[in-house]
Amino acid sequence: MTASLVTKSPPSRAQQIRSFLQKNDLQAWIAWRPDELLMLSGYYPFWGASLLIYFADADPVLFVPQIEPRDHIPAGLRVQEYPWGDLKCADPYSVLVAAVGNELLKAKIRPEHVGLNASAARTSLPIQAAEQIPMPEGFAGQLSELTAKPNTRSQAAFADLYLRKTPEEIQAIRLANSVANVGLQGFFENLQPGIVEAEVAAAVESAIYRQIGRDGIFHSRGWAMVQSGANSAHAGQFNRSTGRRLESGDLVLIELATCVNGYWSDLTRTVPVGSPKPAVEQILAVVTEAQQAAVDAVRPGVSAGHIDALARDKIAAQGLSSYFTHHTGHHVGFRYHDPGFLILPGESAVLEPGMVITIEPGVYVPERGGGARIEDNVLVTESGHEVLSRIEGSKHA
Amino acid sequence: MTASLVTKSPPSRAQQIRSFLQKNDLQAWIAWRPDELLMLSGYYPFWGASLLIYFADADPVLFVPQIEPRDHIPAGLRVQEYPWGDLKCADPYSVLVAAVGNELLKAKIRPEHVGLNASAARTSLPIQAAEQIPMPEGFAGQLSELTAKPNTRSQAAFADLYLRKTPEEIQAIRLANSVANVGLQGFFENLQPGIVEAEVAAAVESAIYRQIGRDGIFHSRGWAMVQSGANSAHAGQFNRSTGRRLESGDLVLIELATCVNGYWSDLTRTVPVGSPKPAVEQILAVVTEAQQAAVDAVRPGVSAGHIDALARDKIAAQGLSSYFTHHTGHHVGFRYHDPGFLILPGESAVLEPGMVITIEPGVYVPERGGGARIEDNVLVTESGHEVLSRIEGSKHA
Repeated sequence: MTASLVTKSPPSRAQQIRSFLQKNDLQAWIAWRPDELLMLSGYYPFWGASLLIYFADADPVLFVPQIEPRDHIPAGLRVQEYPWGDLKCADPYSVLVAAVGNELLKAKIRPEHVGLNASAARTSLPIQAAEQIPMPEGFAGQLSELTAKPNTRSQAAFADLYLRKTPEEIQAIRLANSVANVGLQGFFENLQPGIVEAEVAAAVESAIYRQIGRDGIFHSRGWAMVQSGANSAHAGQFNRSTGRRLESGDLVLIELATCVNGYWSDLTRTVPVGSPKPAVEQILAVVTEAQQAAVDAVRPGVSAGHIDALARDKIAAQGLSSYFTHHTGHHVGFRYHDPGFLILPGESAVLEPGMVITIEPGVYVPERGGGARIEDNVLVTESGHEVLSRIEGSKHA
Repeated sequence: MTASLVTKSPPSRAQQIRSFLQKNDLQAWIAWRPDELLMLSGYYPFWGASLLIYFADADPVLFVPQIEPRDHIPAGLRVQEYPWGDLKCADPYSVLVAAVGNELLKAKIRPEHVGLNASAARTSLPIQAAEQIPMPEGFAGQLSELTAKPNTRSQAAFADLYLRKTPEEIQAIRLANSVANVGLQGFFENLQPGIVEAEVAAAVESAIYRQIGRDGIFHSRGWAMVQSGANSAHAGQFNRSTGRRLESGDLVLIELATCVNGYWSDLTRTVPVGSPKPAVEQILAVVTEAQQAAVDAVRPGVSAGHIDALARDKIAAQGLSSYFTHHTGHHVGFRYHDPGFLILPGESAVLEPGMVITIEPGVYVPERGGGARIEDNVLVTESGHEVLSRIEGSKHA
């Protein structure tokens, strides 16, 4: 795609869904993954046990557990409850599947015109997330009997719906990034020799949770993972906080997932405690330079592979290629990691207005006792980009 | 079961698993749900993308992603890595399934002697839990082709393995409760008029996260939900923290899930801010009395239905039956909610030494503007019980 072919603004969510259904010869889509519910209806499930039928030609029907809170369900949905949470019902899911089947029957829609994603792999968590979502074995299979088989083509097409965010969705992702930045203040304020990694992380998560009740925020949760000194050299493999105490000269890396009202931000910052040790100074400098080079290039019509190369080349120029072991970025917003193309070597997919991607090169060098990654969430605009995760007046390393 | 038939101590975990495999004519069990990995091997997965083959006649084989941290993998497991996290591998799960099949082939075990739980519904979260576990659609189906079908009988028998905790497991659950109590101190210390529910909850979660690095704790995470005043009357339906400010005379309820190194505690406390309003005083008093009556009766040989009736009768005696809308308890330890019989009206299953259950009656009265629940984790001992969640020297309301 060249810049001249770029549309002026992305289509509305309803237009995108209607077009998807039409192109895939579908009259209805069954959604039960938390991020699908959010994308299709603006509703983010509390228990993660809700289900929506999105009809091509009628208002959606939302099925919620008897015990689901109702105060954040958007208007315009026909809400039906099913007996999850009722002591007297041994198998509420069969009741739900039967009700779904009945709605499709009433609408005279045949299975070959119904689509579904059966797996919840890597989708967003519901609000109450102290355990996996409750749909039992067999549930997805029962639903699949109500739908077209095989579903591979429509599932791939569905994944495309995550890519182009609407103005309202961008505003919600902006809010998630703004809350994440409140959390990051807790990171910067706590960086001192002697403090434990987990203590720094706890301060960040706490600051995020405390935002509930402000600016229409009814759900706000962070997952902060802080790695210091030698631990930061593992941050390309995994992120976790340990009991290690920060030392002067350490690099300290924070990976931060933030979910606000169902929308996600995914950030990383790396900063030294005092002046960085000479062995790690170059690492932080090259990552900062590589990340900025990639961010600067984000605009409509540019390929993901080009963005990746800009970051990767800066790191190669310092002889550190083999220490940059992951992709440069991914789509973000409905999940911690949205589906869609990655910012990877050779990826020919091009950026379009409305896309929100992470830019997150990293260099991790165990033999120098340090690693760094800097990650921002970047919106592709009509004329270039906006870094959603750098907030005016906030420290952002 | 009568008290005289009670065994002196529960069998070891290895004995329980061996007996389960033998009775179900199985030579191997494939585990990938985080709590199954923990129960079968003591290993709690970081990414939630690990898999274990437990053999009847050989050491278990553990498959971990290339990027899994290795420092908390117990000795005695044969560890193999697979290329999840490798940029160059498009489908690491197929590599994993093939490797599992190969191990079974080498051991000359036929599918009819292999068991599996294919669904992750309501199982424990992995350590990195900012999104659902990553196994994609089709993964469980591919694994199922390596196993006996139908699996219903062995799956039901497998659920029994959660019920009788070994001394080592009880010690780990004790630690989780001890950490939860550290969190609860943050609850009691913050109860004052004007503070926001989410602020109180954030303080509790923060105190729990900060325990990492102490007493062998490498993972510690809490989910605290605080409901005050009129919001506490919804706590029988759902638990969440809002932006409401506490007021003098409110009942304040905290629901707290805590995971330490993979083992879970599930607690609830309800306390007034200052002196409770007269309208809610009786609610708190009857719940306190009902909970204590049920806890007092916990010992081997007593039925779950009897325990439930003791709590329910106290509430009925105050004319509040219809406001106690849920079960009195469930098994706990490997999950926030372990599988197994519930403490429910009419449940004839009996308590045995080594079982750990919650006792959590609640009364929620919207028209009085308040609700209360008190929940402890209670170990059935050989001679009676031990309340794991009431810690010497801690305030426990």
